[in-house]
Amino acid sequence: MKNLKGAAILGQSGGPTSVINASAAGVFIEALKQENITAVYGAAHGIKGILDENFYDISKEDLYELELLKNTPSSAIGSVRYKLKPLKKDPSDYERLLEVFKKYNIRYFFYNGGNDSMDTCNKISKYFKKSGWDCNVVGVPKTIDNDLFGTDHCPGYGSAAKYVATTLMELYHDATVYNTPMVTVVEVMGRNAGWLTAAAQLAVSKGQGPDLIYLPEVVFDYDQFFKDVEDVVKRKTKAIIVVSEGIKDKDGKYVPEHFSSLSTDSFGHAQLGGTASILAEQIKEKLNVKVRSIEFSLLQRSAAHLASKVDVREAYMAGVKAVRAAVKGTTDKMVGFERVSSNPYKIKYKLVPLAKAANTEKKVPAEWILPNGKGLTQDFVDYALPLIQGDDKAPLVDGLPRFANLKKVFVNKK
Amino acid sequence: MKNLKGAAILGQSGGPTSVINASAAGVFIEALKQENITAVYGAAHGIKGILDENFYDISKEDLYELELLKNTPSSAIGSVRYKLKPLKKDPSDYERLLEVFKKYNIRYFFYNGGNDSMDTCNKISKYFKKSGWDCNVVGVPKTIDNDLFGTDHCPGYGSAAKYVATTLMELYHDATVYNTPMVTVVEVMGRNAGWLTAAAQLAVSKGQGPDLIYLPEVVFDYDQFFKDVEDVVKRKTKAIIVVSEGIKDKDGKYVPEHFSSLSTDSFGHAQLGGTASILAEQIKEKLNVKVRSIEFSLLQRSAAHLASKVDVREAYMAGVKAVRAAVKGTTDKMVGFERVSSNPYKIKYKLVPLAKAANTEKKVPAEWILPNGKGLTQDFVDYALPLIQGDDKAPLVDGLPRFANLKKVFVNKK
Repeated sequence: MKNLKGAAILGQSGGPTSVINASAAGVFIEALKQENITAVYGAAHGIKGILDENFYDISKEDLYELELLKNTPSSAIGSVRYKLKPLKKDPSDYERLLEVFKKYNIRYFFYNGGNDSMDTCNKISKYFKKSGWDCNVVGVPKTIDNDLFGTDHCPGYGSAAKYVATTLMELYHDATVYNTPMVTVVEVMGRNAGWLTAAAQLAVSKGQGPDLIYLPEVVFDYDQFFKDVEDVVKRKTKAIIVVSEGIKDKDGKYVPEHFSSLSTDSFGHAQLGGTASILAEQIKEKLNVKVRSIEFSLLQRSAAHLASKVDVREAYMAGVKAVRAAVKGTTDKMVGFERVSSNPYKIKYKLVPLAKAANTEKKVPAEWILPNGKGLTQDFVDYALPLIQGDDKAPLVDGLPRFANLKKVFVNKK
Repeated sequence: MKNLKGAAILGQSGGPTSVINASAAGVFIEALKQENITAVYGAAHGIKGILDENFYDISKEDLYELELLKNTPSSAIGSVRYKLKPLKKDPSDYERLLEVFKKYNIRYFFYNGGNDSMDTCNKISKYFKKSGWDCNVVGVPKTIDNDLFGTDHCPGYGSAAKYVATTLMELYHDATVYNTPMVTVVEVMGRNAGWLTAAAQLAVSKGQGPDLIYLPEVVFDYDQFFKDVEDVVKRKTKAIIVVSEGIKDKDGKYVPEHFSSLSTDSFGHAQLGGTASILAEQIKEKLNVKVRSIEFSLLQRSAAHLASKVDVREAYMAGVKAVRAAVKGTTDKMVGFERVSSNPYKIKYKLVPLAKAANTEKKVPAEWILPNGKGLTQDFVDYALPLIQGDDKAPLVDGLPRFANLKKVFVNKK
């Protein structure tokens, strides 16, 4: 761990969240203050921007606009889904990265993302160490999926969870206006981990939530599912069901795969019908009841107008802490949160070895899932509730959000 | 027009909005203050609740909860889609209504809804007049579709428009994070009138909106559409397209009808694929580009967390004004808004003959639609922008909205 003098670069990677730019704001604003950091760059579209030498000169931005990044959704400097090949298989990307880092004397590398991004970050960190290039590499966590290992939770999750819970409470009211039978199936993101779907339980805890919740952590049993739905409709006339896009049957097949035999026509069913719409259609056929399917789609990860204040603050501070740790000589780590207590809510920032964060996926613990597999325990509610507290959104101009407007001045290629 | 002493009843009718309960709050709170109003009832599920003598005693509610109604989405006392048959064809409903009104001495009838509901209100008003039952009947406008005649705009529209514009700005940011080609098709409610879809132009006016906007007021030309989309993708790599669910081709066919030949299998295409998903699929086939479709679905009419302050206030005041007009002897009218000026925004409340409001649908004027049919003029922006100003939402408890919790005490049947 060395004190280095040189440029710093941040890359945003993977799917965006409502608060990934808050972490960028934290990195940029803190890095601009540091004496040892001689230049602050933003990589255009993550690692790809570094390989192509496309990066922005952050010193050219107004501080006011950088502050607005805290409440601007999506990846302001562009994201990427680019997986580095294993070094032994193809070293060309690694060599090229080293070349670029040397050319611009980049001594601080911050990478903001989820599992795959921490994997990238980890590989680069190890390669630089091996190559003798002194560069402090610190990962900044981010994912609405909340599945990064080594941290109590991830920036981005709180705001997405707040969106899911709030919207489900609103839908609960909307879905009960007519006194006729109706089944509403809502689909939430989360391919492997059910954290975001589980946030539906927060609405349940207010007595204004869905009747059934299905996570990818539990094997999805179709017969039981239709029976469950029928029971709710018989009892309450209405049923609201929340499913993760990642639910799988005992053979490991997702819902669109399970019904793929029905989608062999030219029209392209699998694309048309997401998990919720397929299940709704099946319910309609089997129970002869009116159905509606709703996909939260991109809305759940971009609804910055409904961001959690706790999440915005923590996302920002994760960026700040990453810079402070790096200039003090930390490398090969990811910033993480350790929960000191839930009530009152208190966390400590910590540093997690990148290798640990990169290679393990954190799922919803089995003991937080109800024995019947259709809901979450109070322990989950106690865990998640502190993360959705408070509002923090962009100032309004003409009744609409005033998002950050970056100049995005490219650094001249050397 | 007579000063009457007796009970008042409110019914909510048709699809809910974020602020229909604000109008209910206005009617209830104002009616409870009036000396000539001896009892205040809320009809359970609109006109159906009156026919069945199912109504709530509003005097049993806490004033605090009635105030919270201003920020509680959906129809708190239940809505209904029930069309009265023409009197000549079947007088039974009318006779039954008269019987109930007489039994409970209901002298004030308020009905909150859109076109169909004003038609119901108008029929009842005319029947009571003919029957010699003195009852002041006043309609309270409500619809996210904004298509009621005789009023500058409708309560519910401003909040839905704010949702559409804000969400599209967020999607604009989300849709541009990767530098790969992608077409996003967003579907907005509005079967016949394009007011809500037009709100997408507000996002465009901030430079963060969709590329193409298609209203039901313009005949939808598929060839031109695919050409338009292709042009945008060529020029910008990304395209965001907003379509009304009500767009129709030259034969008057909606999109799912136009493609109905493709949906003859057992799986039920027409249900699965809404307008946006069908168009997205067609774009994918024709242009060989990645696509995504998003339906705002119920979210656009229930997102009370994103309500417009102007809308909440006007919806509330529409209820208050209805009661005040009725106790002063007004009947057979709907409350409407007249715009005095847009900048600064100023309206006057007025009273519109029910017959006029009931039988005409107001569409987006042709002169506000761009000549190419793919966007709106500045005149539309100037019209709509004042309606989305300010925030007004439910207080937060545990980071989640504290919606009204009514006791809903049924009136004992006589």
